[in-house]
Amino acid sequence: MKPLEIKELYRSGDKHYNQKVKINGWIRTSRASNAFGFIELNDGTFFKNVQIVLESDKLDNFKDITKLPISSSITVEGELIPTPESKQPFEIKAENIIVEGLSSADYPLQKKRHSFEYLRTIAHLRPRSNAFSAVFRIRSMAAFAIHKFFQEKGFVYTHTPIITGSDAEGAGEMFRVSTLDILNPPKTENDKVDFSEDFFGKETNLTVSGQLEGEAYALAFQKIYTFGPTFRAENSNTARHASEFWMIEPEIAFADLKDDMQLAEDMLKYVIKYLLENAPEEMEFFNSFIDKGLIERLTNIVNSEFAHVTYTEAIELLEKSDKKFDYPVKWGIDLQTEHERYITEELFKKPVFVTDYPKEIKAFYMRLNEDGKTVAAMDCLVPGVGEIIGGSQREERLDVLEGRIEELGLHKEDYWWYLELRKFGGTKHAGFGLGFERLIMYVTGMSNIRDVIPFPRTPKSADF
Amino acid sequence: MKPLEIKELYRSGDKHYNQKVKINGWIRTSRASNAFGFIELNDGTFFKNVQIVLESDKLDNFKDITKLPISSSITVEGELIPTPESKQPFEIKAENIIVEGLSSADYPLQKKRHSFEYLRTIAHLRPRSNAFSAVFRIRSMAAFAIHKFFQEKGFVYTHTPIITGSDAEGAGEMFRVSTLDILNPPKTENDKVDFSEDFFGKETNLTVSGQLEGEAYALAFQKIYTFGPTFRAENSNTARHASEFWMIEPEIAFADLKDDMQLAEDMLKYVIKYLLENAPEEMEFFNSFIDKGLIERLTNIVNSEFAHVTYTEAIELLEKSDKKFDYPVKWGIDLQTEHERYITEELFKKPVFVTDYPKEIKAFYMRLNEDGKTVAAMDCLVPGVGEIIGGSQREERLDVLEGRIEELGLHKEDYWWYLELRKFGGTKHAGFGLGFERLIMYVTGMSNIRDVIPFPRTPKSADF
Repeated sequence: MKPLEIKELYRSGDKHYNQKVKINGWIRTSRASNAFGFIELNDGTFFKNVQIVLESDKLDNFKDITKLPISSSITVEGELIPTPESKQPFEIKAENIIVEGLSSADYPLQKKRHSFEYLRTIAHLRPRSNAFSAVFRIRSMAAFAIHKFFQEKGFVYTHTPIITGSDAEGAGEMFRVSTLDILNPPKTENDKVDFSEDFFGKETNLTVSGQLEGEAYALAFQKIYTFGPTFRAENSNTARHASEFWMIEPEIAFADLKDDMQLAEDMLKYVIKYLLENAPEEMEFFNSFIDKGLIERLTNIVNSEFAHVTYTEAIELLEKSDKKFDYPVKWGIDLQTEHERYITEELFKKPVFVTDYPKEIKAFYMRLNEDGKTVAAMDCLVPGVGEIIGGSQREERLDVLEGRIEELGLHKEDYWWYLELRKFGGTKHAGFGLGFERLIMYVTGMSNIRDVIPFPRTPKSADF
Repeated sequence: MKPLEIKELYRSGDKHYNQKVKINGWIRTSRASNAFGFIELNDGTFFKNVQIVLESDKLDNFKDITKLPISSSITVEGELIPTPESKQPFEIKAENIIVEGLSSADYPLQKKRHSFEYLRTIAHLRPRSNAFSAVFRIRSMAAFAIHKFFQEKGFVYTHTPIITGSDAEGAGEMFRVSTLDILNPPKTENDKVDFSEDFFGKETNLTVSGQLEGEAYALAFQKIYTFGPTFRAENSNTARHASEFWMIEPEIAFADLKDDMQLAEDMLKYVIKYLLENAPEEMEFFNSFIDKGLIERLTNIVNSEFAHVTYTEAIELLEKSDKKFDYPVKWGIDLQTEHERYITEELFKKPVFVTDYPKEIKAFYMRLNEDGKTVAAMDCLVPGVGEIIGGSQREERLDVLEGRIEELGLHKEDYWWYLELRKFGGTKHAGFGLGFERLIMYVTGMSNIRDVIPFPRTPKSADF
């Protein structure tokens, strides 16, 4: 007899009512008297458990089974009985139970509530808890929704390199990747490290962004996206920063900032809709236990037209408001989270694209506007989080781009191939970056990035 | 007027016949007389080009357009005319052409044939060539097919860590990840490098496999898969090895080696079928220009039942054969590619699972068979390549696993959480690894791994 999955029971269990079924799973909870016992069994395929009913006169090993420690794995055969008067739609009257793997009395995930901090120390076991089984199934489904969205639109998924020999990304501090003997590295004549002897024949680091390579592919395939790990060697121990995180970076050719924003809006709505439709149990759990109002907020996003405001207008609105900010507002500042949340939560009460930022606070590759002061950049702000997406139209004019590179004291040689993209049939193009973990925090209501990454890497922490 | 995509024209062009259309694209080739001109235009959305017909009396800028260098980007408006007598199904009679971005006469991808070696030096431009536009679209579609296969079966996509602080994976040489000053690293009292001062507070490396973490998640979700970059710091400059490559590692609980092989067979067939159905133009191109017989070989795989043979039987078959091998055959050897290819290509003439290898040549975590000599491992061999997948049932018995760890001189402490998975309700479970680039080489016929990775990383090479 082939085991059924609990997901199958919940999604079309009535097909199996009053029939003999077989399921596998891990014991989540267990209680028993002399004659009866109940096990909540979870097999990992679904958020909910199945109740197994044990009767001493039906099971030879009744006593042994009722004594099994939490998290023991078993195989159950029995009849699937509908239970219309109960909370759960059905239960299984066990006729035969085989122990697959014993757990132990010192299993750390006992029924009592544990803090998320504690659960991080048992990252190998926490996906067996309700909260983390929901988080990591949502993470998986959101990743797939993103692939599905882009593939259905004909985007080419591009694996940009993780190890980079280029110094040109300029988006943050980097981790060095090396096989040199750190106690005794080869030296050049002037006593520097001789990286020509390193594995790749030069100094290499972990990537902070696949954008530049993504642009090369967008100028061949028109529409591409990346989805891979990126790294920041920044010593910031906050609830929103990890040293290793996944990023999605679409890039579109023959497209301007407006197309870029439309793409970002469509993508966010698609992913949220996908989760609300395909993971109702998990979303209901987050709505009840992690973030009340989550489902309403997300549903609003799916149904609203995102607002648009220029940076200059946003600054005016902030200056006019009665709100007291910790960081004073004036044209030229980088918007802080308090400003961003005020704009999206109080002024517009929905997602907002802020566009056309001062060039001084944005990257060299963003397209210079006619005014010579601002660039065609956009940040997407959402209620409850602030910035979730940042993007821009890219500077496609070779002379302007070279001018910006010089202005910022960067070296044209480092960008030879990036500049060639403008020389050999460049077109207007645009793209954005979405931090995947930020998205997961947003759609689950989880407030610490460490709790949406299976095995998080942060300063002083790389366990498991 | 909104631009149409060339893919849309080819897939349902008749909807637009004899109507005015607008398309964007890059000039692939161009030729002209005084009165007429022809441009092959590609917009990146499809493998094939559209022919643009230029007539001097219809286009004000006829002369300028005919002189545009290859790879210039243009926007064309004109009538879509069916051409039933020609090779291509339709052409566009241009009425208006706007130049989006000029290319230059020194554009390196001129019409003549280039060697793949040369094209690697212009990795930012090579996706604009026929061969590489086909390779990298196939790569994208194959990645999606893998996600689709696993998600439809309810597998949870798990992002296992890239940076690992564990020494326990043991599958190859590793790259160190560090932010220490390599010229002046902090030292311990006994003059070793003091990695407690490093970014993560310990020595860290790039992962060689997500399997161990994957097992933790399989023992919560029953069915998981990873799909991410992995790294080998091995100085092997072959056509089949890269220092950075992507790997798929599914892991299934309540499952044995037989289930594992069935999963691998189903997955391979699914991906190949997906590509044959969804990328017929690209597959036809590979079949004609890269690897004659490819489509027949792949179709055979979809339609055949994979064979099964134990390692011991395979050795006997090899010993009995008349074939002369470079590496002599006897029980205990690791099978070489020549052996593997002989088995799959000549003995079975289809994919073969070889199972139950001597424990000495396999990893510590593979489940020991009853005979005490072999482990429940499997390699999947396919014609034309040899090994494409390697997997095993995992040792779920705590005492046996601990015994193997000691036998091999490994340290139990390094595996504390991995061992705990066996202590807290372990079950039989199994998994395998598929090198994504190997798969892409296999389905395209491309023979060098450098030509199926957008920006490959190999010893002494990390350009772009």
